[in-house]
Amino acid sequence: MKIDAALLGATGAVGQKFIQLLRGHPLFRLTELFASERSAGKSYGEAVTWKLSAPPDPAIEALPVFSCDQEPRARLVFSALDASAAGPIESRLVSLGHLVISNARNHRMDSDVPIMIPEINGSLLNKVSPNKGALITNPNCSTAGLALSLFPLHRAFILQSVHTVTMQAFSGAGYPGLSAWDIVGNVIPFIDGEEEKIEQELPKIFGRYNGKSFRPAPISVTASCNRVPVREGHLLDVRASFEKPFTLEKIREEWALFRSEAPYLTLPSSPGSPVIYIPTADMPQPSLFHEKNSMSVYTGRLKALSEKEICFKALVHNTVRGAAGNALLIAERAALIGLL
Amino acid sequence: MKIDAALLGATGAVGQKFIQLLRGHPLFRLTELFASERSAGKSYGEAVTWKLSAPPDPAIEALPVFSCDQEPRARLVFSALDASAAGPIESRLVSLGHLVISNARNHRMDSDVPIMIPEINGSLLNKVSPNKGALITNPNCSTAGLALSLFPLHRAFILQSVHTVTMQAFSGAGYPGLSAWDIVGNVIPFIDGEEEKIEQELPKIFGRYNGKSFRPAPISVTASCNRVPVREGHLLDVRASFEKPFTLEKIREEWALFRSEAPYLTLPSSPGSPVIYIPTADMPQPSLFHEKNSMSVYTGRLKALSEKEICFKALVHNTVRGAAGNALLIAERAALIGLL
Amino acid sequence: MKIDAALLGATGAVGQKFIQLLRGHPLFRLTELFASERSAGKSYGEAVTWKLSAPPDPAIEALPVFSCDQEPRARLVFSALDASAAGPIESRLVSLGHLVISNARNHRMDSDVPIMIPEINGSLLNKVSPNKGALITNPNCSTAGLALSLFPLHRAFILQSVHTVTMQAFSGAGYPGLSAWDIVGNVIPFIDGEEEKIEQELPKIFGRYNGKSFRPAPISVTASCNRVPVREGHLLDVRASFEKPFTLEKIREEWALFRSEAPYLTLPSSPGSPVIYIPTADMPQPSLFHEKNSMSVYTGRLKALSEKEICFKALVHNTVRGAAGNALLIAERAALIGLL
Amino acid sequence: MKIDAALLGATGAVGQKFIQLLRGHPLFRLTELFASERSAGKSYGEAVTWKLSAPPDPAIEALPVFSCDQEPRARLVFSALDASAAGPIESRLVSLGHLVISNARNHRMDSDVPIMIPEINGSLLNKVSPNKGALITNPNCSTAGLALSLFPLHRAFILQSVHTVTMQAFSGAGYPGLSAWDIVGNVIPFIDGEEEKIEQELPKIFGRYNGKSFRPAPISVTASCNRVPVREGHLLDVRASFEKPFTLEKIREEWALFRSEAPYLTLPSSPGSPVIYIPTADMPQPSLFHEKNSMSVYTGRLKALSEKEICFKALVHNTVRGAAGNALLIAERAALIGLL
Repeated sequence: MKIDAALLGATGAVGQKFIQLLRGHPLFRLTELFASERSAGKSYGEAVTWKLSAPPDPAIEALPVFSCDQEPRARLVFSALDASAAGPIESRLVSLGHLVISNARNHRMDSDVPIMIPEINGSLLNKVSPNKGALITNPNCSTAGLALSLFPLHRAFILQSVHTVTMQAFSGAGYPGLSAWDIVGNVIPFIDGEEEKIEQELPKIFGRYNGKSFRPAPISVTASCNRVPVREGHLLDVRASFEKPFTLEKIREEWALFRSEAPYLTLPSSPGSPVIYIPTADMPQPSLFHEKNSMSVYTGRLKALSEKEICFKALVHNTVRGAAGNALLIAERAALIGLL
Repeated sequence: MKIDAALLGATGAVGQKFIQLLRGHPLFRLTELFASERSAGKSYGEAVTWKLSAPPDPAIEALPVFSCDQEPRARLVFSALDASAAGPIESRLVSLGHLVISNARNHRMDSDVPIMIPEINGSLLNKVSPNKGALITNPNCSTAGLALSLFPLHRAFILQSVHTVTMQAFSGAGYPGLSAWDIVGNVIPFIDGEEEKIEQELPKIFGRYNGKSFRPAPISVTASCNRVPVREGHLLDVRASFEKPFTLEKIREEWALFRSEAPYLTLPSSPGSPVIYIPTADMPQPSLFHEKNSMSVYTGRLKALSEKEICFKALVHNTVRGAAGNALLIAERAALIGLL
Repeated sequence: MKIDAALLGATGAVGQKFIQLLRGHPLFRLTELFASERSAGKSYGEAVTWKLSAPPDPAIEALPVFSCDQEPRARLVFSALDASAAGPIESRLVSLGHLVISNARNHRMDSDVPIMIPEINGSLLNKVSPNKGALITNPNCSTAGLALSLFPLHRAFILQSVHTVTMQAFSGAGYPGLSAWDIVGNVIPFIDGEEEKIEQELPKIFGRYNGKSFRPAPISVTASCNRVPVREGHLLDVRASFEKPFTLEKIREEWALFRSEAPYLTLPSSPGSPVIYIPTADMPQPSLFHEKNSMSVYTGRLKALSEKEICFKALVHNTVRGAAGNALLIAERAALIGLL
Repeated sequence: MKIDAALLGATGAVGQKFIQLLRGHPLFRLTELFASERSAGKSYGEAVTWKLSAPPDPAIEALPVFSCDQEPRARLVFSALDASAAGPIESRLVSLGHLVISNARNHRMDSDVPIMIPEINGSLLNKVSPNKGALITNPNCSTAGLALSLFPLHRAFILQSVHTVTMQAFSGAGYPGLSAWDIVGNVIPFIDGEEEKIEQELPKIFGRYNGKSFRPAPISVTASCNRVPVREGHLLDVRASFEKPFTLEKIREEWALFRSEAPYLTLPSSPGSPVIYIPTADMPQPSLFHEKNSMSVYTGRLKALSEKEICFKALVHNTVRGAAGNALLIAERAALIGLL
């Protein structure tokens, strides 16, 4: 008996990734699709311009697309809505009692809404009532990679400040997103709003929740974002300083030991290792994602800059761990503890 | 009456750029070409696999290619030799009385050899004797952009530390350089030896010369280098802290006021403004170089991170200011002060 | 005393190329700019998102942008309008007495409107009255390369049929045009309407005008179009059969002898050789256009398939000879014979 | 009980694809690896610069690499050798009694060696003795796509002539293969020797074997090859004429009905449909292969040019059906009929 799930924003790039990852999912069954007025009334096959390689199941293509005005029957709602629409739609569904897991940025910084990476702060789900509505948000795609790679180090050595320079894939801008004219053979040293998101979200994810609101962790975060002509995979150059002394060996050990605690390790989308360090000199590269979806963050090129400071590179699959895949892992954990 | 010039390493990627930039040059006439044994004895047209768009002059194509064992007749020698060969060849020519301006890294860190960016330390040419041999080196291509963009700020506010994350064009690796397989749609977070070069060269360029050797400026430099699928133009993310207080307005002013001092401003390769700040939100981009060679460094996205620290982006044309163009500007200045 | 020129569709990709090519033009002075309602009332600098590398002159940036409802003062009007708007606007200006040289497809196949490539059928300008309005159209960008490369052969051997497979640059789709998502690392084997244009336009260009209407030449043309991840330069694979016997040597000779006849050879945009054959095995390549605008078509890889049939490759700069540059050459010729 | 298999040329690009496709294969177990002298004596993990995304099994990485001088113990030998080495090595192993399935071009046109695409001429395996050595070759990667897409049409309407213009992925050139400098943002209208291979191999594959030698089918084939900046997937523009009348509907039907006959349909690498027609206007595109290996050829854009002539596009995965995958399918069929 699978759990029914609804999907908002089903025709967009993130919506398509949700559909791809939910194909044959052992826990969830996608039963309702919602999109903009333009798509409502059509079948999904008619409404979507499919952009991923393997096409969706015929059963999904046959599903009708509903307007976001309508209420899903399923308690579980994934939101892949664009930020221009997500805000009030998600709020309304929460007030109607749905568990909404959203990839949109709109409510991330609301005082009582968690930004969740299950391996880091998944236990916040324990505060959600199985009978009430609730909103859980994904982090920004770059934040996801940054937070996962830093969390085991933060736990061990207490993170004080971090500066990241990102090189982000164009799929992160959705479809149609960037014009070929702008990005082919080029780098664009700016992504609107992205730096602010990273700078605000990481302290919140590493912060504390007192039952009513979040107090961000006292970590100084600065980010400088760039768009590169890569399809999938955000590469981050990370410079971090810690309160406690460390050795490079211990850092590699913290990454290697970092595991989702039982029983969450066995969830369908749970990676064996959330962070995988690659010792090869020229890794990690986005080409690691050429043929696969991955929920793990890959790190490499670890160096000590001083006694308190390191730098390293981190690679995160922006549409998987940075979007649909992380939301799915949240839902799987919610299902396991009886919230669905 | 133009000055004769010889070119070592004429068939490689940097050699070709020298030939392109010397075409119709008002001061210099390329009269002798040198390359590896494999090319020696052929005409240049036979020996070269030309990789730039406009082909060389027929007169250049007809020139014979000599082995680097032979001595040029011209006093002025440009070296575009590969580091695997440059060391002893350049030393020998200096001992034979030539003025060698080299793009190779081999002698850059020699205690008595300057790394020259004319607008910064071109006055070191005044110590060269018009009757003796001398070696002047170009900086590494990324260092060139970093040093030019920081020098006017260093002069005004005293640079203490700098961290740069680079996104470098594949033309910097020469020809054939990178395999398409490795870099198309990808980023490689490593360039062998590049970080060390940047970290060592910048303090030397900003340092002092006591007539015998160089004392590096006390600046902490760290670099993290990446290769991106861009043809020409290295983009640098720069984070810098200063001893003296600054304002963003003053920084933009220092960049705008930075000029080559007279009479060097009128040299053929001298840019009107060595540093050009672009206030547009998403600039500078490597595509600025799609149709032109440029000796200027473009900066943008200037932000204050703290009272002592800023970050910004800088773009340098790696094969022009980062290689052949900078060497040419050195030679032009040497000609002006009677060294040739 | 330069001739005033107006430009319709000034903010689009083709409009920008017109502005780039008209910079410092010896015959024409761009005095009036027209664009859509959205841009009207702004200065050009405010209205445009400039996409070419060197920015326009400050004098051009300061020009006001007018709505296309208004009538230009200049007799000479370049139209870079989108096909969705060009039709009635161009007709109205012709009826008001303007000489309109258009890159839009709308009127190309009108029975009394020439599709002009000056080296082929520029003498049609002699039928234009200096006191009346007239419309002259550019061919489609691929047709331009196909027609130029085939015309000298047609003149000598009488073309019977041609089949072309095109590999077209994404700049041909305008801005924003193609999404990076669709074209990076990919080929799209379809361009809407393009094959029909090529198939109809070539016979018309090679056809006859009886003073009232055009009779197409009896040539069978088939085309199969593809979009490739190239910025500028359409590469065409051409297979052509002729009525008269030929030799490969004679074909290369016809290309080499093909010249604009005097006095048109000295027009500012006139290429020395409209067709340049490159004997190198792996040429022509779009990278020939990396650093330059070119009005010449480059051919290569000439082979005989049978006694009557050849195949070869042809490369045309789609935004220069295939758009703004060809229109400019038409206008230069019109000026020379006193139509302006 | 799996069948042991040896692999020659294990470290190259095609060799790596063999290893990827043999991972977990139900019939074969890769037990011996052979490569050049340079790699011999190392473990595979030490010898290889792995270029595909998922790394090989640790068990494969631990295998020793032997020199090609040595004889494999396994009867079944896959050859991914470079053409510079393959000729005599393969001949020797055949004379020693091995069944060699080769991707190298060296022996393809030998009078008694079949070029095999199992769905077309797999029955030639019935002439191989289970006790003797034999050599079976793969077609060239473009030929594979051309032959598969044309075979069902040839069977129904008798192919007379075909002209193909190819747009080929750079992975077809092996590793390192093309320099980024040459192919990024470019098309190269030439692939050395490729056109000849296509022109010779297709008639042989469609020809007859009299027990001693092959007589090519009387089909005129011409090819014009281009390299495009695509990682995987050769796209072919095909123009074909037939002896018998056809309709487009019948052609689509022939493609749809084309199946591997029983019992070969159930072989592990056998595609359900060797040719899949996609009716969408802008298909097939190489991006179809972004996330998957495919043994099917995709066709699209079918048009009639005349009563006897059609054109269409065909897409083949060059390293799968065009190389390792086709060889694997041959071996699976050989195993089924008891040759191994």
